[in-house]
Amino acid sequence: MIIVMRGDVALGSEAVQEVVRLASRYEGVETQVRTIEGATRSLTEVYLLGSTATVPREPFEEMVGVERVIRVRAKYRAIGRHEGEAMEVGFVYNGIKFSQDTFHLMPGLCAVDSRESVDATFRVLKSLGISTTRAGAYKPRTSPYDFQGYGKVCLPYVFELAGKYGISVIAMEVTHESHVREILDALEASGNATGVMLQIGTRNAQNFELLKAVGQQSRLPVLYKRGMGITLDESLNACEYIASSGNHRIVFCLRGMKTNLGDPHRNFVDFSHVPVVRRLTRLPVCVDPSHAVGKRFVGPDGLEDILQVAAQGVITGANAVLADMHPSPAEALCDGPQALLPNELEHFIRDMELVRKAYLDRVELRRRMLGALAPLGGRASG
Amino acid sequence: MIIVMRGDVALGSEAVQEVVRLASRYEGVETQVRTIEGATRSLTEVYLLGSTATVPREPFEEMVGVERVIRVRAKYRAIGRHEGEAMEVGFVYNGIKFSQDTFHLMPGLCAVDSRESVDATFRVLKSLGISTTRAGAYKPRTSPYDFQGYGKVCLPYVFELAGKYGISVIAMEVTHESHVREILDALEASGNATGVMLQIGTRNAQNFELLKAVGQQSRLPVLYKRGMGITLDESLNACEYIASSGNHRIVFCLRGMKTNLGDPHRNFVDFSHVPVVRRLTRLPVCVDPSHAVGKRFVGPDGLEDILQVAAQGVITGANAVLADMHPSPAEALCDGPQALLPNELEHFIRDMELVRKAYLDRVELRRRMLGALAPLGGRASG
Amino acid sequence: MIIVMRGDVALGSEAVQEVVRLASRYEGVETQVRTIEGATRSLTEVYLLGSTATVPREPFEEMVGVERVIRVRAKYRAIGRHEGEAMEVGFVYNGIKFSQDTFHLMPGLCAVDSRESVDATFRVLKSLGISTTRAGAYKPRTSPYDFQGYGKVCLPYVFELAGKYGISVIAMEVTHESHVREILDALEASGNATGVMLQIGTRNAQNFELLKAVGQQSRLPVLYKRGMGITLDESLNACEYIASSGNHRIVFCLRGMKTNLGDPHRNFVDFSHVPVVRRLTRLPVCVDPSHAVGKRFVGPDGLEDILQVAAQGVITGANAVLADMHPSPAEALCDGPQALLPNELEHFIRDMELVRKAYLDRVELRRRMLGALAPLGGRASG
Amino acid sequence: MIIVMRGDVALGSEAVQEVVRLASRYEGVETQVRTIEGATRSLTEVYLLGSTATVPREPFEEMVGVERVIRVRAKYRAIGRHEGEAMEVGFVYNGIKFSQDTFHLMPGLCAVDSRESVDATFRVLKSLGISTTRAGAYKPRTSPYDFQGYGKVCLPYVFELAGKYGISVIAMEVTHESHVREILDALEASGNATGVMLQIGTRNAQNFELLKAVGQQSRLPVLYKRGMGITLDESLNACEYIASSGNHRIVFCLRGMKTNLGDPHRNFVDFSHVPVVRRLTRLPVCVDPSHAVGKRFVGPDGLEDILQVAAQGVITGANAVLADMHPSPAEALCDGPQALLPNELEHFIRDMELVRKAYLDRVELRRRMLGALAPLGGRASG
Repeated sequence: MIIVMRGDVALGSEAVQEVVRLASRYEGVETQVRTIEGATRSLTEVYLLGSTATVPREPFEEMVGVERVIRVRAKYRAIGRHEGEAMEVGFVYNGIKFSQDTFHLMPGLCAVDSRESVDATFRVLKSLGISTTRAGAYKPRTSPYDFQGYGKVCLPYVFELAGKYGISVIAMEVTHESHVREILDALEASGNATGVMLQIGTRNAQNFELLKAVGQQSRLPVLYKRGMGITLDESLNACEYIASSGNHRIVFCLRGMKTNLGDPHRNFVDFSHVPVVRRLTRLPVCVDPSHAVGKRFVGPDGLEDILQVAAQGVITGANAVLADMHPSPAEALCDGPQALLPNELEHFIRDMELVRKAYLDRVELRRRMLGALAPLGGRASG
Repeated sequence: MIIVMRGDVALGSEAVQEVVRLASRYEGVETQVRTIEGATRSLTEVYLLGSTATVPREPFEEMVGVERVIRVRAKYRAIGRHEGEAMEVGFVYNGIKFSQDTFHLMPGLCAVDSRESVDATFRVLKSLGISTTRAGAYKPRTSPYDFQGYGKVCLPYVFELAGKYGISVIAMEVTHESHVREILDALEASGNATGVMLQIGTRNAQNFELLKAVGQQSRLPVLYKRGMGITLDESLNACEYIASSGNHRIVFCLRGMKTNLGDPHRNFVDFSHVPVVRRLTRLPVCVDPSHAVGKRFVGPDGLEDILQVAAQGVITGANAVLADMHPSPAEALCDGPQALLPNELEHFIRDMELVRKAYLDRVELRRRMLGALAPLGGRASG
Repeated sequence: MIIVMRGDVALGSEAVQEVVRLASRYEGVETQVRTIEGATRSLTEVYLLGSTATVPREPFEEMVGVERVIRVRAKYRAIGRHEGEAMEVGFVYNGIKFSQDTFHLMPGLCAVDSRESVDATFRVLKSLGISTTRAGAYKPRTSPYDFQGYGKVCLPYVFELAGKYGISVIAMEVTHESHVREILDALEASGNATGVMLQIGTRNAQNFELLKAVGQQSRLPVLYKRGMGITLDESLNACEYIASSGNHRIVFCLRGMKTNLGDPHRNFVDFSHVPVVRRLTRLPVCVDPSHAVGKRFVGPDGLEDILQVAAQGVITGANAVLADMHPSPAEALCDGPQALLPNELEHFIRDMELVRKAYLDRVELRRRMLGALAPLGGRASG
Repeated sequence: MIIVMRGDVALGSEAVQEVVRLASRYEGVETQVRTIEGATRSLTEVYLLGSTATVPREPFEEMVGVERVIRVRAKYRAIGRHEGEAMEVGFVYNGIKFSQDTFHLMPGLCAVDSRESVDATFRVLKSLGISTTRAGAYKPRTSPYDFQGYGKVCLPYVFELAGKYGISVIAMEVTHESHVREILDALEASGNATGVMLQIGTRNAQNFELLKAVGQQSRLPVLYKRGMGITLDESLNACEYIASSGNHRIVFCLRGMKTNLGDPHRNFVDFSHVPVVRRLTRLPVCVDPSHAVGKRFVGPDGLEDILQVAAQGVITGANAVLADMHPSPAEALCDGPQALLPNELEHFIRDMELVRKAYLDRVELRRRMLGALAPLGGRASG
């Protein structure tokens, strides 16, 4: 760990002495003070050597005269892409593989509203060869006076119908640890007719107790949605809570950031971070274009913004796409108009396949023109 | 509820028909379509009359051709400042009154690190006549590898020492509903030597399950910290979860927003919202200058930024001020340098009192120069 | 124009009377007050009819009791996509067509640093069949102590070499109206060996005097770069300054927004707005991936983030791509490492062509599966 | 200058060699490579020694393997508060002193709309003993179709009336360098009846050509308004353009930042930066509460938000307060309702004086309780 002092702090000053004194209170830590003379000023640094892994950064950061604290160690210990680990590491759940090399479309119901619409939705998915979906039973809402989802009451028929139509994985948000138990029980009662990927919503992105809870079980994988008002770094650290609790089967999902700079979309679409997450971690990356855009807009080329931003994720290597759909929007009491229609769903699937193929062609073109990849850490990283 | 159609949607268009059809599916709701002719264009609106309280807004917002949905009803049903309710409504807890008319300083330990520092802290507070404080036992941290607080282990001595030094209320963050039970048990074991105000941290600002949990008990009041990346409106709606669950004893705390526009402060100080929260709700308003500023900076006038922004809250009517302090920062392993020292604490208290008096003088000056207040809703609101 | 009153303002209240009085002071404007009774409250609106085009919105917006002012008229009068104008309207400059249907790559020098590098750059472009580029002579810099570009001194050789290598259009930033004259003079002196597209940088996005200056001449088209800290709506309004001054030959360029939510990229990439600008206006849309990303990062698939975000623009219909390149980065004193190398340039071109083709295939797929486009305004807009 | 390499870059790697090679191309620069061994990884740095003042930072920042570039030199060369310069440096203009120790109220017309309102405004100001004001002749507007101000046409009567009522300084926005000439001419024609402080608006905060233009003259001081979407650091650097061009008579004005996190205020009030600017620079600091809040809101204590946020600036040492007022808002076609009324103006003045006195009392209290100030750089800075 390196403590960089402010430019105006001299080598022998009290501020430097204080840093050294504090550092010396940690067992097994040695310090070394270095100074560098510039043309008009000098810069001083205190180096902490030895067992610095458990030395906290904050006490130094907050000291008078300290400019910055640099920790010389790997970030994202559990989920990060470290040297010598260039190979992707995914997982297989209920027969479906998720990794940085796979690609899945997960259209489905934002909120379960009736057995009929679940049946119709799954039937359409089956007819189009889709076995991964989403279905919301527990719905966190901004206002306590809005519909909060049917909860565990709907689980039996959702799972039964999933089994009937060959759905293997359902992404389903949980907002309390008890929901995990309810889901596991209902799955068992259904004879494990299907599988569930526990979704952590953006409002719970730093609900560390919930993250630890889904991390401490290993039966179900987790779809983690990035926090809408925190940095990417903070969201990745939050994922570390899941992984460090024992569950490494995580999919990281981008869903847009909360700032009016993204208007007229509901959120500022952040799918430019698809390659970033793929580089910084070994997690498969998902995008949620429906919640990012939030409304249906059609361009002069006939393409909806929801498909357009989905394509932006896929052309850069996204491994999964969530999308709201509804078998009969006119009868849905909620989210109907935002949902894709069955005939649009087929177009959505073909469009995404077209773009996925273009992405794979891009990777091949790169290999052909620029040669084999340098070993990671060679050319760059970031 | 009023559905405002986009400017290019004609009275007889399909889009309007769809809105009407959807509206008619809600029981007890009548619709009325109105159009207004401008010079060059026209505007159409669909009015929903009758039992619209349970009609959701989203299905309409997401429809093609809909510009905006206006709900004609009061906001913040439980915590809001509504007509005929101009009088402030506070609460008394453990002998201390909290309302929009009271003023309390709550300096204390960000994190409990030892019995000794708790003892020394409370002793200093007693010597300065302070009986409200903060003390962190459960600490949510960005990284799972950082110190997470001593949890329930430290509660017995914290409460015992609080009793010894006459501390009446301790603000203490909880990150899981089980912490409420632990705190209640420890309080009882201490012979109710003191009182605890449950603090909801910014990372859990939309952890609705936790909000409902602290709302469903009424033994302990709640200090709700605003979410750092969501709008004020969303944070106030989150408070509605607490209040609508049954617990109206809430203090709303501002602590800065997460955006680099606030650099070099850790957060963008948002204490300009003190008068806004006081106007929109009946909740007492607290400010946390330590976490807003995040570091000690001293100005050319000798005043630290932490005191300066605290003064900004108080000069506009803030009802409480949290502040990190430590009896011996040089021995603290965490947050030491950010904390106020004992001799600074006395200055902090006198400074805040000076500013509080200036605020009260401002209110009196206004009354003298501009006369009695118009009844709310008369002159304005917001 | 419609003045929507706050929910608590009654029909006969003073606030409504004030709105009516103010409105009546505008000639040719009639008012009509309407109220709607909800279940528990009522809502009142004042409609301004007649010659409201010149009635300002602010005086009403700022009145006590006013919730919102809605203007019933088309936005973006000059550049907008209005009904009956669904056909794209582009322009031809120096033999090159720019429209929402064309596609151009514009790699080039961020800053002109020597005749040699300009010569080498243009030679490479010619060898790859590129005749559109960028070259910076006037460089606005955050600090006055940084290199500010060679200005008009370099124009003669830049234009001469452009002519030699068949470059037809050079995007070149101007920061003062006098630069337009300097460029026109130098172009003439070169025998109009090439053409220049005047670039308005993000720091001047609301420098209305400069916008009017480039709008009042019609010899040179304009590449307008979106403001980095204002909404899209405000940037489009700024374009109206150019167009309403007489020059409709505008290309709108996205280049990322300034917020730390986009970290680790220099800016938050905003190419999700490509379809938005194409829908709201008739302007061709350009993307600048080099300044959006700001640094070279290579993903596990070997693709650089700069190419990845460029692909995100192109897969959704972007009409042009700016990109920094340098013939010999090792010898460049500025921006070298960020620039593409000649061998990378060819890969960049092939990659962009691959993605452009995928976009065209997407449009064709949509037509085949969902049928011909509804006339604009039919299905939707935005 | 210090080039900090990424954690995974080894001492002998190609990346380090490239940095050294590039550095060696600058004359008079020597390099030194240092590495530090942590427990599990190592960190390498390249130190540039000698004549590094003109070595640009970007080429290194953009290199593969570079983590960060630290320049060891003073920031804000011209306006900054450097060691040994702890004394404030202000200026006197037209008999009025502006410094970090003075305090001025500058209520006035946002936009000049008629001779009558100017006359009435100045008359009120004189009656209340105010000789500093604001008056807008050149108005930049988001849309080109809105009122743009009367420009130079109104200058003669504005200056004549200022002379009549003893107004010494008028803050007046300029959006083009020609306006400076027009103002100087009109001042001369009026027999220098008053003085003008050139205001740079937030939209021109990085219009460097305009900044240089107002910096190259020294007749008139400058009121620089912070950019609404850039960091404080960037705005201070922009001020360096003015100062480094020759004009050090600058007042720095805070006016709120553009982000919806500040809702319901028009802008996110940033007056927490008052002490920051006072610490980082020697410039007097002004606040503009009218444009920050943007609308009139009255709290339950009868105080308007505009006065409340103004008080937040003043309680922390702000040296000036701009405020919109109008002698007869009911007759104003623009901004009337936002403006203070004459009777409110007196209350505004008394309120601000009360708060200014409280600030001075705070400084005295601090001196009394904590002793004389440590020499700058001693205790801290930031």
